[in-house]
Amino acid sequence: MEHYGQVLPKTDRSRVKRAPTRGAYDRASVYDILDSVPLAHVGYVIDGKPYVTPTLQWREGDRVYWHGSSASRLIRKARGTEVSLAVSELNGYVLARSAFHHSANYRSVMLFGRAEIVADADKESRLKAFVELLYPGRWDTLRPVTEQELKATTVLGMDIAEGSAKIRTGQTKDDAEDVSHPVWAGVIPVTAMAGAPVPAPDMPGGIDVPGHVRNFSLPGAKGRD
Amino acid sequence: MEHYGQVLPKTDRSRVKRAPTRGAYDRASVYDILDSVPLAHVGYVIDGKPYVTPTLQWREGDRVYWHGSSASRLIRKARGTEVSLAVSELNGYVLARSAFHHSANYRSVMLFGRAEIVADADKESRLKAFVELLYPGRWDTLRPVTEQELKATTVLGMDIAEGSAKIRTGQTKDDAEDVSHPVWAGVIPVTAMAGAPVPAPDMPGGIDVPGHVRNFSLPGAKGRD
Repeated sequence: MEHYGQVLPKTDRSRVKRAPTRGAYDRASVYDILDSVPLAHVGYVIDGKPYVTPTLQWREGDRVYWHGSSASRLIRKARGTEVSLAVSELNGYVLARSAFHHSANYRSVMLFGRAEIVADADKESRLKAFVELLYPGRWDTLRPVTEQELKATTVLGMDIAEGSAKIRTGQTKDDAEDVSHPVWAGVIPVTAMAGAPVPAPDMPGGIDVPGHVRNFSLPGAKGRD
Repeated sequence: MEHYGQVLPKTDRSRVKRAPTRGAYDRASVYDILDSVPLAHVGYVIDGKPYVTPTLQWREGDRVYWHGSSASRLIRKARGTEVSLAVSELNGYVLARSAFHHSANYRSVMLFGRAEIVADADKESRLKAFVELLYPGRWDTLRPVTEQELKATTVLGMDIAEGSAKIRTGQTKDDAEDVSHPVWAGVIPVTAMAGAPVPAPDMPGGIDVPGHVRNFSLPGAKGRD
């Protein structure tokens, strides 16, 4: 159930207040960024203090998921608590005529919600979806997952119900009177690139490179021109 | 005053508990990551709830800085409050024989501390340092900063006193009995690359491309082989 035409409500915490023209609330924009940028930073409050931890997220329908060790203190503390999940990608450096208008091109999403534990019965399906999103066809070729491994892994999920995207693209935006100032101005783009796969040195001979490795493209690379 | 030889104390919140062999507490490791990865995620607690916002950070000596609009609610709320600052870079996808041992290569830093406002008298020096770290020689070629612009900008700083780095590099680490499982295993590296600079279309003719643009390299590119 994907609600691609829908728009997330602007709440007090999700509304983009600085540079509001950079804000987007439609699910299509938010989902495009989530699907392009696996690296996420999850914020929790523990004993009144802030914690931010990096993790990889994935989206299925209108939910976002991440996982960790069941023994992890932060994963245990995150159960059922309010979290803020941020996904950001730096796309370029913007060099303006004034220091003030220097900027960065970026795409980011901020989500708010309550992290919920995925039930034991659903855990394997969620982890399979994660692997298959990154490496289509890989799951069934792996050494099957064990009960012990599933037990050692906690999957957290959150409804995508409150949040927003913030995007800056394009060129410098200088004050009109500064445009003639004699300094180079423009954008230096930044792109993440996948390198050539490096086989594990302990791999036995005779194993073919599968399509999901041969044709691997970074999640964000699909939408690029 | 840089204390490169020094080590950050392991506190209850800075100690790397999961995969402790990936943890590092020496300032050299922490500073190397901070200097390589400008994109940071800062976590705050506002009214008991977690917020995470992306920003660019820079380091001078034993302090880390970031800035924002003085009118920003999150910047205003961050003054004097406890924050958690995370800097993370994804360096590769690790494809193991079991789903459980799939991983990612990454470098990350987590810092804890109190965000302090940089005094008005020091603001311009800090912003100059930020610009010069990214684009050596650029500051003096810019249209000079105005009082109004300085007023509209808040610079926050934090002592680097509590935190840790967490790094995963290298190959798959499968269970010994899985190594013979007939599936491709290895690492797909990920690297951020700077593209060709794109000049602002409204730039007057006759402006040379300065060295800091011509020879621009991403902050993290220096240490790469």
